[in-house]
Amino acid sequence: MEYKVKDLSLAPKGRIQIEWALNHMPVLRRIMDEFSRTKPLNGIRISAVLHVTKETAVLVKTLSAGGAEIWLAASNPLSTQDDVASALVEEGIHVFAWRGETTEEYFWAISKVASIEPHIVIDDGGDLHSYIHTNMKDIVHKIYGGTEETTTGVLRLKSMEREGVLGYPVIAVNNALTKYLFDNRYGTGQSTVDGILRATNTLIAGKTVVVAGYGWVGRGIALRFRGMGANVIVTEVNPIRALEAVMDGFMVMKMSEAAKLGDIFITATGNINVINRQHFELMKDGAILANSGHFDVEINVKDLEAMAISKRDLRECVTEYVLPNGRRLYLLGRGRLVNLVCAEGHPSEVMDMSFANQALSAKYIVENRGRLEKRVYDVPLEIDQKVAELKLASMGIEIDTLTEEQKKYLSSWTL
Amino acid sequence: MEYKVKDLSLAPKGRIQIEWALNHMPVLRRIMDEFSRTKPLNGIRISAVLHVTKETAVLVKTLSAGGAEIWLAASNPLSTQDDVASALVEEGIHVFAWRGETTEEYFWAISKVASIEPHIVIDDGGDLHSYIHTNMKDIVHKIYGGTEETTTGVLRLKSMEREGVLGYPVIAVNNALTKYLFDNRYGTGQSTVDGILRATNTLIAGKTVVVAGYGWVGRGIALRFRGMGANVIVTEVNPIRALEAVMDGFMVMKMSEAAKLGDIFITATGNINVINRQHFELMKDGAILANSGHFDVEINVKDLEAMAISKRDLRECVTEYVLPNGRRLYLLGRGRLVNLVCAEGHPSEVMDMSFANQALSAKYIVENRGRLEKRVYDVPLEIDQKVAELKLASMGIEIDTLTEEQKKYLSSWTL
Amino acid sequence: MEYKVKDLSLAPKGRIQIEWALNHMPVLRRIMDEFSRTKPLNGIRISAVLHVTKETAVLVKTLSAGGAEIWLAASNPLSTQDDVASALVEEGIHVFAWRGETTEEYFWAISKVASIEPHIVIDDGGDLHSYIHTNMKDIVHKIYGGTEETTTGVLRLKSMEREGVLGYPVIAVNNALTKYLFDNRYGTGQSTVDGILRATNTLIAGKTVVVAGYGWVGRGIALRFRGMGANVIVTEVNPIRALEAVMDGFMVMKMSEAAKLGDIFITATGNINVINRQHFELMKDGAILANSGHFDVEINVKDLEAMAISKRDLRECVTEYVLPNGRRLYLLGRGRLVNLVCAEGHPSEVMDMSFANQALSAKYIVENRGRLEKRVYDVPLEIDQKVAELKLASMGIEIDTLTEEQKKYLSSWTL
Amino acid sequence: MEYKVKDLSLAPKGRIQIEWALNHMPVLRRIMDEFSRTKPLNGIRISAVLHVTKETAVLVKTLSAGGAEIWLAASNPLSTQDDVASALVEEGIHVFAWRGETTEEYFWAISKVASIEPHIVIDDGGDLHSYIHTNMKDIVHKIYGGTEETTTGVLRLKSMEREGVLGYPVIAVNNALTKYLFDNRYGTGQSTVDGILRATNTLIAGKTVVVAGYGWVGRGIALRFRGMGANVIVTEVNPIRALEAVMDGFMVMKMSEAAKLGDIFITATGNINVINRQHFELMKDGAILANSGHFDVEINVKDLEAMAISKRDLRECVTEYVLPNGRRLYLLGRGRLVNLVCAEGHPSEVMDMSFANQALSAKYIVENRGRLEKRVYDVPLEIDQKVAELKLASMGIEIDTLTEEQKKYLSSWTL
Repeated sequence: MEYKVKDLSLAPKGRIQIEWALNHMPVLRRIMDEFSRTKPLNGIRISAVLHVTKETAVLVKTLSAGGAEIWLAASNPLSTQDDVASALVEEGIHVFAWRGETTEEYFWAISKVASIEPHIVIDDGGDLHSYIHTNMKDIVHKIYGGTEETTTGVLRLKSMEREGVLGYPVIAVNNALTKYLFDNRYGTGQSTVDGILRATNTLIAGKTVVVAGYGWVGRGIALRFRGMGANVIVTEVNPIRALEAVMDGFMVMKMSEAAKLGDIFITATGNINVINRQHFELMKDGAILANSGHFDVEINVKDLEAMAISKRDLRECVTEYVLPNGRRLYLLGRGRLVNLVCAEGHPSEVMDMSFANQALSAKYIVENRGRLEKRVYDVPLEIDQKVAELKLASMGIEIDTLTEEQKKYLSSWTL
Repeated sequence: MEYKVKDLSLAPKGRIQIEWALNHMPVLRRIMDEFSRTKPLNGIRISAVLHVTKETAVLVKTLSAGGAEIWLAASNPLSTQDDVASALVEEGIHVFAWRGETTEEYFWAISKVASIEPHIVIDDGGDLHSYIHTNMKDIVHKIYGGTEETTTGVLRLKSMEREGVLGYPVIAVNNALTKYLFDNRYGTGQSTVDGILRATNTLIAGKTVVVAGYGWVGRGIALRFRGMGANVIVTEVNPIRALEAVMDGFMVMKMSEAAKLGDIFITATGNINVINRQHFELMKDGAILANSGHFDVEINVKDLEAMAISKRDLRECVTEYVLPNGRRLYLLGRGRLVNLVCAEGHPSEVMDMSFANQALSAKYIVENRGRLEKRVYDVPLEIDQKVAELKLASMGIEIDTLTEEQKKYLSSWTL
Repeated sequence: MEYKVKDLSLAPKGRIQIEWALNHMPVLRRIMDEFSRTKPLNGIRISAVLHVTKETAVLVKTLSAGGAEIWLAASNPLSTQDDVASALVEEGIHVFAWRGETTEEYFWAISKVASIEPHIVIDDGGDLHSYIHTNMKDIVHKIYGGTEETTTGVLRLKSMEREGVLGYPVIAVNNALTKYLFDNRYGTGQSTVDGILRATNTLIAGKTVVVAGYGWVGRGIALRFRGMGANVIVTEVNPIRALEAVMDGFMVMKMSEAAKLGDIFITATGNINVINRQHFELMKDGAILANSGHFDVEINVKDLEAMAISKRDLRECVTEYVLPNGRRLYLLGRGRLVNLVCAEGHPSEVMDMSFANQALSAKYIVENRGRLEKRVYDVPLEIDQKVAELKLASMGIEIDTLTEEQKKYLSSWTL
Repeated sequence: MEYKVKDLSLAPKGRIQIEWALNHMPVLRRIMDEFSRTKPLNGIRISAVLHVTKETAVLVKTLSAGGAEIWLAASNPLSTQDDVASALVEEGIHVFAWRGETTEEYFWAISKVASIEPHIVIDDGGDLHSYIHTNMKDIVHKIYGGTEETTTGVLRLKSMEREGVLGYPVIAVNNALTKYLFDNRYGTGQSTVDGILRATNTLIAGKTVVVAGYGWVGRGIALRFRGMGANVIVTEVNPIRALEAVMDGFMVMKMSEAAKLGDIFITATGNINVINRQHFELMKDGAILANSGHFDVEINVKDLEAMAISKRDLRECVTEYVLPNGRRLYLLGRGRLVNLVCAEGHPSEVMDMSFANQALSAKYIVENRGRLEKRVYDVPLEIDQKVAELKLASMGIEIDTLTEEQKKYLSSWTL
């Protein structure tokens, strides 16, 4: 069996991690039971590029329970949990992932999982979709469909759709309400706090925290840092979102102003060079820099490296840069996803919903193969609602239902 | 000149109210200046049914400055500010509105403003659109278009569209981001607190507040009552929204459970009979009942009247019902919009954005007459963004803009 | 019977107000029942200077039920609810209070209630205590004792104690935990929001609100305005409190900096000239000025009057001042307690606890007459705890009690 | 030189940790500079029992810079950071501490640091004070004085004072405003979140969190968990605190009710057996148990061990107990201080203030030796205020100062 992981002897520790995740993923557990019985993915080959964490392991096991053969690579060179990767290999998953991959190794692993001529392509960030569309044009048409986990990846796929090059239907799992309303907001909000605390153990109360971007991720981060006692500044390029941040009680200003005031900076824009040389020059001594966006492009680390007169790793996850003006800036996790690199990524309870959408979308792709266009699709609303209902049920929460009288009222328009 | 208001001598007081509103509506003020110069509505007749408040007066004056002739009725029998109505008459607006209309008077006033064969129909709640489609079928086709201010009205218009009876294009002003994200959430959130405080002067801290509905209005209310120290319970029929409420830290349960726990109940569902006999029977002595939804159908007042062994008006806006079990329930504002009936409705700053969308949509309808289908349209994104930009500018807030490099990055998908 | 109120025919309306308050004051209701049976104040003459509101009426009726004869004047020229005053006269209380007293009338009323040679002196702010010590030195020694409701009054009495001039024991009701932790914080917090909303109907979300003073009142205000979506700045003179405000996530700066940034200013320091000419000159057009401190000295209205080139009353409770630089400042309630002048003061539920301490302290003074020194006393802890226990019971809340094992553990120190 | 630590080769890593802490402790840094010049502790022997963390290292270095000789043991068997302990040995501190001490080793280490016949005794929890008073009665009178860091320790010392056995003056550093308002509340609040996240990576949003105790620690925890999206229940034995929790918007009930509802339980009472068998039996499957009180007595682990049918360590810091009813309970950090055992304890910024009080109190004891009674003293207000002022200055925050006019106003009482 082909695979490449750090150290297979870590598998027992990984198994317990996966068990812990499984206990906190009741929706996916229910789907796994169903898949075990009904085998909706029998004979299906899946190429997947995802953060190789204990929660991903539960998804992969669910797909595997459904009958699929899975080849898995990491969607980030620093986010793999090596013990979990090993435990998956023991379960027969073809894993090509270890923490601390070089850029070459990262793409090599992607090429490995792409090489199986998959029926389904599951991606987080769009590198696998992009790789296949760039390097494997001859097999693209054989693919039943794909899914995409992140805002960033969906944006890239929409570009491909607009340019007419998208080669198979893709379900934008990111756009499921039960994904982005929860994972992007509550998941990243909490795990960004967690990553920054583990990296620095700094007091958040009384600090000025600058959050770049007020999308779902950014607002989750802003909310949670306020919840920990910070004074939060938001920067945005979208006037409507900027106004929302104002009304939510945050200060809103340009990054060139915020740079002077912040104690902690967190990027969540999905864009490039949001913080760069001109901002580093304005920052206070001791400022902390973290990124919660998918790629490590938001904080311009090249600028920082070029400016610094010295650099050293201070704590795990903390690199100190000394600038010519004598001030020290602290970069966390090398500018990569701070919640995955410096902590454990999203809590299992959040990934439960995101990955339930993934699993049900894979089944949907198989059931609808040949009937879907080469477009980016939203997750069908019935899948979205089913995930929410299962989650509520797992929490023991009951809600009201519409009476017939109410349904009729809602659809009437007469006086 | 035709009109019907309570007492014209109130006009001076109304003028100062309107001036106060104008001072707090910088976006609409800017549009008024522009309309005064460019007269985009010259010769246009507008029938409008809106809450006749000081903020509506600023909208009406803006439309009038653009050249329109306006006939205005109230969208709620209890929400008219009589001094404002009088001041508008003095400005040449045909107003048919007074606080405390009977149901017959309410519809008579609507019939008056409909009678002018309008080019544009501006409505809040859908009663005017419904009236015209029901009683004036022969002139419907001459109407250039309409707008609609509320969620409730938009739902009714979508029903009409679905049934193929919609007779002119309608712009769903409610669906503008700069409307519902702000007006429905921050506006109703604050003004519901305001209405309940003015009506009762009760301490919110430590109370259990039940909010029915977790749409934009409901979440604004839940947020603000929590901000005042309440313990908030949410009821919902939509599982995804219910789950969002859970993750926002609220308790979620059926109304039949919440009924036993609540000190204050607030409905914001847009639906009928959300609280009725079975719930009244479970409530604690002294429970307070308020509605923030458009129509007075959410709390089943008929049930309450039928059950009560006695009833009296206790304070302005507070009616006490004594139930057979000896418990007293307090209904605010007779179950009508508590923020408009017991307070002054939304703050001017919020209506500034909603009504800027109204004014610009009216201009858009005129500019595009004959080119629009008989459908419910969203407000064009450029109008929405322009409103946000004007608002930010009026607050002295500057935000970042995308660099060319960033724009290019956002539209690329290659590795 | 001697009294002076605005209009006795308002009594029926006042009675309903008092009934409403009584319904929301379960602790005082319980004490009233007890006093009716046990008559602990039989033959006692009480001079009281309090805000003449529906809640004070419940206190006065409680004292009266206990057998006392009460003469009551207002502790603020603008805070009397005339209907309540009339209803009290009907109950046989000697009331000398009406809304809109001149300064002379205010002190005349105080002199009237002082003239009865009271056994007990109940005061709110210290003007009555001060009057008696200044003008009635010969009868001071006959007084059994007094109570004081506010931080401001307690500070004045402590000055008198320090200077050795205090003529009778005083119980600082303000310093009861069940008073200042609740009344000063949650009561003033909410009622200040209420007063400002009724006065202005301005949107709080997105506004910058400057709170001067971070005592219990100030922190209640800061908390509630944040809860309504404001960005709150705190000013302080005490470094420890300033640091607490920082850690609570507020911005802290000098008033001379805050003056440039604020949309709404609220004083709660108990001190003089906290906002004056130098600050008015820096403020933005449209800034709103309100005071929640006991006396109308915190905002320097004289400076404002002297600077303004014009002045007019815009809405009830809103006076517009136009400065030479063309900017408009809006003073609420003439700089007097905004929660009492522009709204209804604290909610009944809060006054329930404060006044329960008053009633039980009056009884305590009678029971201990001759045994107390001429000092400022805290409310006895057993009274404080009894009030809390009655309040919890009235809310149906049960709490844990210490086991014997736990009590023993708490008092041990050995290894 | 005498010492006992885990592994001296960890010293380089420890040095960097201490440097990181030092960077975030500007107040103590300033005091260290002053002590280096003035040597106020020359010739003084200090016995200290503290959590051996990077922040404690900065305090110890400060005392050492002042001229003292320090012998240091751990105040908790599981809280020592071994690398820091080693780095301190290299600096000449006599450290007797390693992570994972047995109870015997813990007391042996205390006996070692007590054995030097100290001039000053610094303690955290009171075990050192208790040990000296129990086992070294003959030298107690030679001690200049002691300090105590925690609420728990102060309670024990007050018991000793009450019983007349306290042998030297003790300054209750815990009772400094700049200690308990910040350390107990913001420090423990954040670090408890941190500890629970590191231990479990569980989603807090939407969870029901039960906080036992609403003292300064408990309210910090309740606030922060709400800030992370939890629905928080508080249990209390003190009715005034219970009522405060209610007014802060928390649900308050008995532990026997809360036990059925909670997903996460956190104790912060300073008392014994707050959660025991009767509560474990009611808990939901998967409930998480953590303690933030000083001693591991709050959760009755013996009961849990006795009840469980199986037990295993699942993750670092997480022990799973399976009950006879099949439900699983997860105990974090064996019931010891979750913030120190599962995370890194308080952030440096918070300890900066607590330990500044320690350092200045040590100096105060030396300066006032022979002049203090054998009592528990509060930290002198001038020390408290100096700490606050230095902290504000280090944050670049300037505050207002009282004018002469204002000072005079505050001390006047006349009309």
